[in-house]
Formats: sequence, C-alpha cells, structure tokens
Amino acid sequence: MSLNSFGRVLRVTTWGESHGPAIGAVVDGCPPGLSLSEEDIQPWLDTRRPGSSRFTTQRRESDQVQILSGTFQGRTTGTPISLFIANEDQRSKDYSDVAKAYRPGHADYTYDAKYGLRDWRGGGRSSARETAARVAAGAVARLVIPEVTITAYLVELGGDPIDRNAFDAAAIDANPFHCPDRAAAERWEGLVDGARKAGSSLGAVVECVAEGVPSGWGAPIYSKLDAELATAMMSINAAKGVEIGDGFAAARLRGEQNADAMRAGPTFLSNHAGGILGGISSGQPVVVRTAFKPTSSILTPVPTIDRNGNETEIVTKGRHDPCVGIRGAPVVEAMMALVLADQKLLHRAQCG
Amino acid sequence: MSLNSFGRVLRVTTWGESHGPAIGAVVDGCPPGLSLSEEDIQPWLDTRRPGSSRFTTQRRESDQVQILSGTFQGRTTGTPISLFIANEDQRSKDYSDVAKAYRPGHADYTYDAKYGLRDWRGGGRSSARETAARVAAGAVARLVIPEVTITAYLVELGGDPIDRNAFDAAAIDANPFHCPDRAAAERWEGLVDGARKAGSSLGAVVECVAEGVPSGWGAPIYSKLDAELATAMMSINAAKGVEIGDGFAAARLRGEQNADAMRAGPTFLSNHAGGILGGISSGQPVVVRTAFKPTSSILTPVPTIDRNGNETEIVTKGRHDPCVGIRGAPVVEAMMALVLADQKLLHRAQCG
Amino acid sequence: MSLNSFGRVLRVTTWGESHGPAIGAVVDGCPPGLSLSEEDIQPWLDTRRPGSSRFTTQRRESDQVQILSGTFQGRTTGTPISLFIANEDQRSKDYSDVAKAYRPGHADYTYDAKYGLRDWRGGGRSSARETAARVAAGAVARLVIPEVTITAYLVELGGDPIDRNAFDAAAIDANPFHCPDRAAAERWEGLVDGARKAGSSLGAVVECVAEGVPSGWGAPIYSKLDAELATAMMSINAAKGVEIGDGFAAARLRGEQNADAMRAGPTFLSNHAGGILGGISSGQPVVVRTAFKPTSSILTPVPTIDRNGNETEIVTKGRHDPCVGIRGAPVVEAMMALVLADQKLLHRAQCG
Amino acid sequence: MSLNSFGRVLRVTTWGESHGPAIGAVVDGCPPGLSLSEEDIQPWLDTRRPGSSRFTTQRRESDQVQILSGTFQGRTTGTPISLFIANEDQRSKDYSDVAKAYRPGHADYTYDAKYGLRDWRGGGRSSARETAARVAAGAVARLVIPEVTITAYLVELGGDPIDRNAFDAAAIDANPFHCPDRAAAERWEGLVDGARKAGSSLGAVVECVAEGVPSGWGAPIYSKLDAELATAMMSINAAKGVEIGDGFAAARLRGEQNADAMRAGPTFLSNHAGGILGGISSGQPVVVRTAFKPTSSILTPVPTIDRNGNETEIVTKGRHDPCVGIRGAPVVEAMMALVLADQKLLHRAQCG
Repeated sequence: MSLNSFGRVLRVTTWGESHGPAIGAVVDGCPPGLSLSEEDIQPWLDTRRPGSSRFTTQRRESDQVQILSGTFQGRTTGTPISLFIANEDQRSKDYSDVAKAYRPGHADYTYDAKYGLRDWRGGGRSSARETAARVAAGAVARLVIPEVTITAYLVELGGDPIDRNAFDAAAIDANPFHCPDRAAAERWEGLVDGARKAGSSLGAVVECVAEGVPSGWGAPIYSKLDAELATAMMSINAAKGVEIGDGFAAARLRGEQNADAMRAGPTFLSNHAGGILGGISSGQPVVVRTAFKPTSSILTPVPTIDRNGNETEIVTKGRHDPCVGIRGAPVVEAMMALVLADQKLLHRAQCG
Repeated sequence: MSLNSFGRVLRVTTWGESHGPAIGAVVDGCPPGLSLSEEDIQPWLDTRRPGSSRFTTQRRESDQVQILSGTFQGRTTGTPISLFIANEDQRSKDYSDVAKAYRPGHADYTYDAKYGLRDWRGGGRSSARETAARVAAGAVARLVIPEVTITAYLVELGGDPIDRNAFDAAAIDANPFHCPDRAAAERWEGLVDGARKAGSSLGAVVECVAEGVPSGWGAPIYSKLDAELATAMMSINAAKGVEIGDGFAAARLRGEQNADAMRAGPTFLSNHAGGILGGISSGQPVVVRTAFKPTSSILTPVPTIDRNGNETEIVTKGRHDPCVGIRGAPVVEAMMALVLADQKLLHRAQCG
Repeated sequence: MSLNSFGRVLRVTTWGESHGPAIGAVVDGCPPGLSLSEEDIQPWLDTRRPGSSRFTTQRRESDQVQILSGTFQGRTTGTPISLFIANEDQRSKDYSDVAKAYRPGHADYTYDAKYGLRDWRGGGRSSARETAARVAAGAVARLVIPEVTITAYLVELGGDPIDRNAFDAAAIDANPFHCPDRAAAERWEGLVDGARKAGSSLGAVVECVAEGVPSGWGAPIYSKLDAELATAMMSINAAKGVEIGDGFAAARLRGEQNADAMRAGPTFLSNHAGGILGGISSGQPVVVRTAFKPTSSILTPVPTIDRNGNETEIVTKGRHDPCVGIRGAPVVEAMMALVLADQKLLHRAQCG
Repeated sequence: MSLNSFGRVLRVTTWGESHGPAIGAVVDGCPPGLSLSEEDIQPWLDTRRPGSSRFTTQRRESDQVQILSGTFQGRTTGTPISLFIANEDQRSKDYSDVAKAYRPGHADYTYDAKYGLRDWRGGGRSSARETAARVAAGAVARLVIPEVTITAYLVELGGDPIDRNAFDAAAIDANPFHCPDRAAAERWEGLVDGARKAGSSLGAVVECVAEGVPSGWGAPIYSKLDAELATAMMSINAAKGVEIGDGFAAARLRGEQNADAMRAGPTFLSNHAGGILGGISSGQPVVVRTAFKPTSSILTPVPTIDRNGNETEIVTKGRHDPCVGIRGAPVVEAMMALVLADQKLLHRAQCG
C-alpha cells in the first residue's frame, strides 16, 4: 500500500529529496545469513554516480553508502537493512527560477496540483537522485539471487539505434553510454555533446537481460512477472514505455512466428516471449526494454506558467543530465534485481 | 500481496478457471451509496462477450453477471461486492492434445514448471475468460469516477496501423474491431479472415484514452499513475508492451519537442506526456497503449514437447480468438477504470 | 490493504451478508498439489452450523460449501480457491424493528454513521453468519499445516469458569458448549437456558491451543505471531479481548516466575509465554484466549434511538444465539489455522 | 506485507537495533501541508527516554530526533518523512553472557531458531529501543488527528491496581509511573525499588483512552478498529494481552448490562464497548488496555541452555527496566495515534 515502497516479500522503502540532508532505503524481508557490507553495494552506486563523465550532470556526489541496521558480524540478520547516503553537493540557489515557474514536462506543476506545495530544490522527491536509493537496495537484492546475472545497456539514444549485429557485451563497460555497439557509442558522443551545447536533451531506450532465472517465478494474474517488471521500470523517472521480449513488435508477428518452439531439455528455438509465459518465467533469459524521454530540464526556453497561473517562459539552469537514459541503465538493473529477488521468495512461499 | 488481487484502496480479487463452474470477482473498498445493479455491469460484459462476431472465438457464453453481495435496495453498502458469472459452453474434450503437450507461447509449460500440475481445460486460469471478471469489476469502478470518460480502440492490427487523420470516434462501435478508422476496419476484416483460414493468428495494439481525469491523481514514486497503469495493462493476457503518451517515440524526441508547453488555464499546447507528469495526472487526457501478441492457440503445427519432455508437434483445436487484441479493448478500459478509481480514493485519503 | 481480506501470503477475502443470496471466501496463495474437496471443509462448517442444539440460534442453514475454482482432479492448483455457501433460511421480516432503531451494543448505529446506509436484514455484513466463510477458509488453511493440531474450547461461560483440574479433552466434543469440564458443561446448560428464557444473553471466553508449531514462525515487530493472532481473534464478531499465554495474569507475575526456564532438547519447564517469544514461535504449544461479549440482540427492552435520533426502546426478535461465544470456538480455530498457515509460508519465503 | 511496517494508508516502517549506529522510522502517506519540525516530535520522545528516573533503565540516551526528509519550509510535503535517532550509550560488553546463552522469556532463543543468527548486543532488534522509533512516528500521526486527545496511564503495576475512585488525571504526569492514583504511585515506588533490589522485575497494565474520535472510523471485518488496535498494542515488546472497553470483564456481563443504552444526541449511558461497535468507532472515547509481562532480563539466575544446547544458568547484567510497562505508556499512545490517523485517512478514502 505504501506509496514509497516496492515489493511484496522483499520490500524496499525509499525516502529523501534531492537537496535534503540525505536519501536512503530500508530493505525489509531480506533472508538472513547473507554476507553483506558496504563493499557489496558501493560498486553499483558508483556506476550511476553523477559526474562520472562529461555526458552526465556535473553534480558531484561521492554517494558513499552506510549500512545503519540489519547486519551483524558482516551478515544479514533478517531484520530491516537501513541504507543511508548523504547529499553533499547542493546548489539550491540554482533553482530560484524553478521555484517560481513550472518546467514543462516536469513534475513541478503536478506536485503543486496534488500537494499544494513542493520542495523545488533540485526537484525534491521527483529528482533522479532518488534512484541512488534504488540502486543501493538493488545491490542487496542481487545477493538474494546469486543464480541470476543482470545486464542493462542502451540500444537507442537520441533516435539512433545500435546495430544488433555489432553487439559486443565487452563494449558495454568500455564507454560512458553502457552501449554494446562500439560504433554507435562513438556516434552518441557527438549526439550528446551536440544536444548539451544546444541546451537540449535526448531520450534513450535501455534493454535489460536477466540470465539464470529458473522457470517458475511469477504468477498467473496480477502479479505476473511481466506486470511486476512493467511497474518496476515505469516507476523510474522519465520512463514512458516498457516492453517484454519482442513487445510492440510481437503485435506485428503471426502466431506461428511468435510462438517459441520447444525442443527436449527443454530448450526453446527462439525467445520472442522474453522469458515469460503466462506471467511465469520459462527458464529463458528475461528481456525487458524501457523507453526514457529526454530530460525536461533544458536551457532552451519553453513557454510555461508561474505559480500564479501567469504565462511566462522558463530556462532551466542548474546541472542536469543531457540524456537521463544513460544513467538509467544501472537503475533498470536494480529494479530487475528487486523484482526477481522478490518473486523468488514469493515463489518459495507458495511452492516451497 | 494477494496474487489475484489488484488495487490499493479499491481492491479487486478475481477467481475462476475457463472450464470450472463459474468465474467471479470480489470488489472491496467501494464507496457506499452508489446506485448499482446488474444493469450497470451487463453492457460492459456484452462488449467483450465471445461469439459476438465471426472475428472472435465461437464459444457461446451469455456472461450474465449476478451481484451476490455488497448492495442493499439498489445501492452499494461499502461492503464487498461479489460478482458471479457462470461458465456455460465448455467443451473440455477439445483440449485433450493440450493436456499432453505444451502450446509454445502459451502458459502450459510454465504452469507445470511452477505448480507441478495445471488445469488444462481451456487453459484453466490462464484463459482470457478471466478477463470477464475484470470487465465486471471495472464496471463498478466506473461508478466511482463519473467525471471520467474512458475509450479504448485498436490502432494497429496484424501490423496494419490506422490512419490518424481518418480518426472517427463514431466508427469505434460501428465495426467488430473497435477501430476508429473505417477504411482500416475494412482492411482488417480481410486480415483476420485470412489468418483464421490459414490457422494462424494476429497481434494488435490497443490505445486507451481517459478524459476528465483531474490533476493530482497518482504519486511520485512506486505508485506513480503510469506505473500503476503499466502493471494493470501488462497483467492482461497476451500483453507484451505498455507505453504512456508518446512512449517509445518520446525516446526519439528532443527535450524542447517533448516538453508540453503550458499556457494560462492551465492549458497544454501538446500532450506528449499522455496526461501524466512525475507520476501524477496533469489534467490532460491520460493516454496508454498496450501491445497484444498473436494468440498462441493456432491450428498451424508447432514443434514442442510433451509433459515427459519428449519432442512432438502440436496443433491447437478448440475455439480460439484469431486476434485476442480485438477483445482486449474492453478489458483495457476496465483496467483503466480500476486504476483511476483506486487512485482517486487514494488521493482523497492522503490529500482530502 | 483490502478491508475484507486477511493474511499476507496465504490471503483470504470473505464476502456476503446474512440475508443475501450467499456468502463466500476466496483463498489466494494456497500451495499447489494439496488434496482438497468439499469433504475436507464440510465437517468444520458443521461444527459451527446454527441450530445444532437448543443453545444456539434456531436459524436452519445446511451450510453446504461448494468449491468453485482452484482445484483440478481433486488437488489445489495454486490459483484462487472460491468457496461458496448459499443462504437458505432467511426471515427478513423479523428485522423490521431493527430497520427503524439501533440495537445498543450492535453495529447498527455505527454502520449508518460510517456508510449512511446499512443492510438491516439480519445485521447484514455484521452478522456472525460471515464467520461461516472464515471456517471454510480455515479448513483449507489446515491442509497447509498438517503438522499442527488446533483445539478450541470454552473455559468460561456467563462468568462461570471451568475447573482446570477437571480438564478432559475428550469432553470437548461431548457437550454442546465445547467445554472440557463435564461438570461445568452441566452447569452451563442451566445458565444458557435461564438467559434465553429471561430474554437475555451471556458472554464467554474461548481458549485455543495449537500443538506442533515448530520454532521460528512469526517475526520480531509488526507481524509478530502474537500480534497476528490478536488481530485475527479480535476481528471475530463480539470479541473484546485477546491474550497470549498467561496474558493479563502475566502482568501480575515477577520476572523469575514468568520466565519459562529451558532445559536440553530444548524443553521448557513451563509455558507462561503461550509458545511465543519476541513474536516468534518457540516450539511450545501456542495458547490464545479470546473474550466474547454477550449477544446484543436480546428480547429485554433497551433504551435506544431511531434513525431520526428520536428516543425509543428496542426489543430484538428474530433468532439469535443466547451466547455467541459457544459458536465462537470453531471460528477461533479457523483464525488460528489461517494465521499459522500464513506465517508458515511467510517464514519459508524469507528463511527458506 | 512488510514485516517492519505498520498501517495501511499512513504507513510507518521502523528499522534499527539497540546497539547499531542508529534507529529510525519512515512515515509514508502523510498528508501534505502539516506544520512539522523536530520540536513537534521531541517532547514525546522525552516522555519515554530511558534514565528519566531511578525506576527505569539507567542507559543514557538523549534521543534527539532528526527529520531527514518529507518537509519543506516547515511543512510536510506528502513525501516520506525519514526520522533518525542516533544510538549513543552502548555497552555491548555487558552482553557477553547473553551471546552465549538464552534468556528465558526473551527472544534470544527464537531469533536463533528462526534466523540462524542474532545480534545479541542489547537484544538487537528485539530491544525496547525500537519503540523510540514508534514514538517518533506517533508524534507525526498526532498531527493528522488534531481532533483527538490520547492519554495512556498505568492502572496496575506488579499486581497492585489503582483505585478507580481516586482517579486524578492531573496525577499522571506528576509521578514516574504515569499513574492516575497518587496513593498507588507511592506504593509502586516501593514495589519497583524492591523488585530492582531483588534482581527481579514486575509487569503492568496500561490503559489508553482516545477522546474526540468521531463515529465512523474503522471497518466491519478484518480491519475492524478494535482488531487494528489489538495488533498495534500486541506488537509492542512484552505485551501479552489486549482488551477493548470492558474486555474480558464483558464476558461476565449479561446482554442488557453490556449494551450501552443510547439517548438523543446521540449520547450513550455507558461505555462498556470502549467506543467501538462492529469494528467502527461510535463517537464515545476509545478505551484499550494492554498487559505487559515483567522484564525477562533479570539478575535472578534462571535455568537455561546455551547455543549448543547445553544446560546452564543465566544472570542478565546490563541496564534493564525493572518494569518495562512504565515506559510502555508513551508507546501505547503512539500506537493509538498511528492506528487512528491511518483509519481516519482510510475512512476518508472510502467514504469521502
């Protein structure tokens, strides 16, 4: 029910605003006895940390995580794990314009409409900063599913897709775009530089593959594995679309093309289904794609209104990601880990 | 937590298998004092009823709903509303082949993998028959949000999209495809007839628009309105993708293109966001598209394995929808109604 | 979140009013592969069925349960189990007085205050009839915990307690009061007859013991096993108090008296704790006592007000239990089974 | 579902161990626009702070609360409120014996049985220290229900009850026992001193009254107001019994005695029901009593076993409350506030 919690058996609650003293997550329901220390979490936070390249916001955050509870002598105790990350580099004055007027495409207007007030400093709760807490929680979830390997990467940036034939897993960590196509990564440098210089921003599509998921995780109806993944990914800032396996392309296939034929093993001769049949994992790799819109905070002037409803124009200064999708990849991985860990435990509950 | 329940404050639990005695839904948390009788629900069930045209399964079900609880003297009492729909036209013998082998693309294999057994008669719980219970529950949800008008229609069938310039709302109910483009509807007749005769099946994309949603419904993080809609739509049988507003296309726009400029009112000069900003409704129409894969139950032989893992081939007889997306439209409307009604009550809880 | 659902992993939703067409329960999250038929449920319903002796309401209900979903070839499939019980013997006219005025001590007034209307026929949703659905669901829960034996019995009726030294388990089913003390059972016959003839009613205290619960079920804080039992028992009609182990008497012991000393095994030299330490089962018998107030529906006139707020007097005709606690015993057993089955699965989820 | 969360719409998650770096709570779903600062919370924490008199543990904690999120310019924003309390005075070495053997009556054994390990420092998560987080969260809940006044006090200590005729509300804050009977408070000084010197401990019964609760809060079945209060109170450390209104005494009344007669207004001529009828508030004061067992950590040697199952004896050194019930009063008030605030919002959701 909780608005800021995610998961059913392994349940995460995040808290914190962009310019408050800190942000954090509480991970509840974690199995006991797992070896856990800050060292298990920090590397994942580092992959999403801002300022790691000129293609992301220049805000400087060390994003050092502290474990405040839930472990004893280096192992999880089964009690809630409180993860704490301090906010360090805040420049609230950058947001004086945002305080007065609404950024089109941003949550400024709807927060005021819903709550009657908002923390305009850096977007407050609507800041992508919240995703650091997800990544920290996701690192804990990964320990619950050691049998699973999760990899997220960009397959499209600014409308420029990768060449699937040039897919090179080794390239993903070799460029600042989590891009598996080295040639595309080079093109994207120019795209992002151009957008930033033009005071604009770009969108992206992130694909995430989970390998090693056994068959049987998920459920037939409202907690279908694909439905859980859909809400997980769509809950990420700037996400506007989610698809499983062939997704929207599957709607253009014929039944016999889309049906992944089975052979002894079982093995499947294709994976149009993205590893999920009837809401339950099939044992094939689970494949999800998430579309991220371009950042709404841009230097290009956009017509808008102020808090009093008067027409004006806004130019968003401050330090923003020219393509929030780039830093979306580690967040997508974290949400995948959270969903799968939760579903593993839920499956164990019902089916032993 | 419940695997077969949906919603937070207005909560629906569905039950029943394709070939059991009946299916149904329990709607909990409904506001009291609403005028409700079977007549408020039946019309919506009729729109999804099988056998209404030659383009859907020929299974004959009257789908007469009975209200077994939760009303008194024609009004809701605030107690659970139990909705009951009998199964009438069952031909379990049609499924003898399905009992032995797995339909590729279907849930047969994963149900066995998860539960160790399955009700193979008509797909049991994985049958689209379950969606009748959703439509009945959705009809109750509509009464909670009289200010909202919900319309779903197909924008693509078998890879053939409508012409947006030929969009005619009046056409939607004038053809068996819920198609707003009269010319496309004619083309689709041929497509579906062809697929059925070829023993194949087709996919489709359903768009759903909710008008009259005020600004302020939804929440910033895990119960974002778009995330709730994503899980709602993805939980429907055969759904493989969901997008809000421009969705995947938004990932190809630049920031200034995607930002819906605001003018006094407030009015918006565009609706790329699909009526949702930061997880909260903006007051613009809420727009969601859902991709449906082609039906897995086809007459075309597909390589598969039997329960013992031996390789074989399967041909699915029985009565199936050549394009399950056609009957998906009323289900998408029901899920939209359930999400919006739940979010309306949830907003009222927190913000009064 | 659901107002009419109970449980976390094994989740029950009940529906139905006293004088509607039927009542029922949906049991979700049940493990697959359990042998289940109506025969597994009916005996438990028979133990609470009205009219079984002159000491309970004379309403005649056969309470025949039907399983409408969730089983296949006699075994649970893991999908929701829909349990259906028809209402047969309704005499709504008996309630014309109740329609006009409020029974002091009953929910009549508060239902109107909350919902603005109520189903006054037999108390509608507030009728003890709802407990039949709990008993049916509890019978399913028992199958999930075959290692546990649950026994509930009255230890006090109308203020007359049993003699613990005369405790005879064999006596419990040998009298209409579920009383383990044969002498007390005889005295109680006179008490209940006297109360009924006087147009009055009596309260009772039900004790429930669960043997065979292994150590480790439950949780440290908000889902403590004792907290789950407390809400389960207090949710039963007419329940006003719940205690675990020595309960209120423990507040009068000194630390060294209350501490159940441990010896190798482990064995405990006493069970003041009622089998629960820190919210988690210790392996000792789980002991819960529930206090039931006297029935509010009595023939003795009581000052009250009518729907318009005018002062009047009410005499409740109709067929009522002179001591609702008598029929509370099977309901208490059902709630114990539901809590323990749910906690067993929840423990398995987190701790494997 | 979350094991360490409480509430449905206003939802609190607590975290932290007795001897970790800190403890805290996240309050989610709080209405926006409420004036909130540390000054609104600190006074309530001070009432439960240890070391405030010689009758409680001598552990020294300043229990200064920090608000880390959820407010802006002194008002709640509707986003999660993170409350942080540092642990200051830890002497883990005091617990070397507890690390080796189990304290009878304590959670030591069951934590090991469930999780396979435990944080033995000060009882870890099972320490009453967790209740500081509840009190902080309860202070926020109080702001949601300004119409309600909550008062908790001890009505019995060490088996010595107060004299109801000597009830003096002004006395409650005038003695270290939250005792409304000045004479009893004097007697209790001797009782607690005696128990402490004898290396023993005492139990207590806390009564809590909420005035100003309007009629209509709560629900008929599983989220009955009395059931919610029962789980709330039973979830507090050392609680073993909960009763509403007359509670167990009601089981000894006759129907006409127990029925609270109504007169125009409505007014009630008595309040045996404790302000709750059919799970819904009646508008009368809500009355709940909670029984606390004597502290398990005592200097008197008790037979027990060590982690290897060998028989031994344990004497618990360290600093403990001779009567944990004394400090239970502020915690009971906090849980009452959390339940009522949650039910107020839940009622608003369904009934507007």
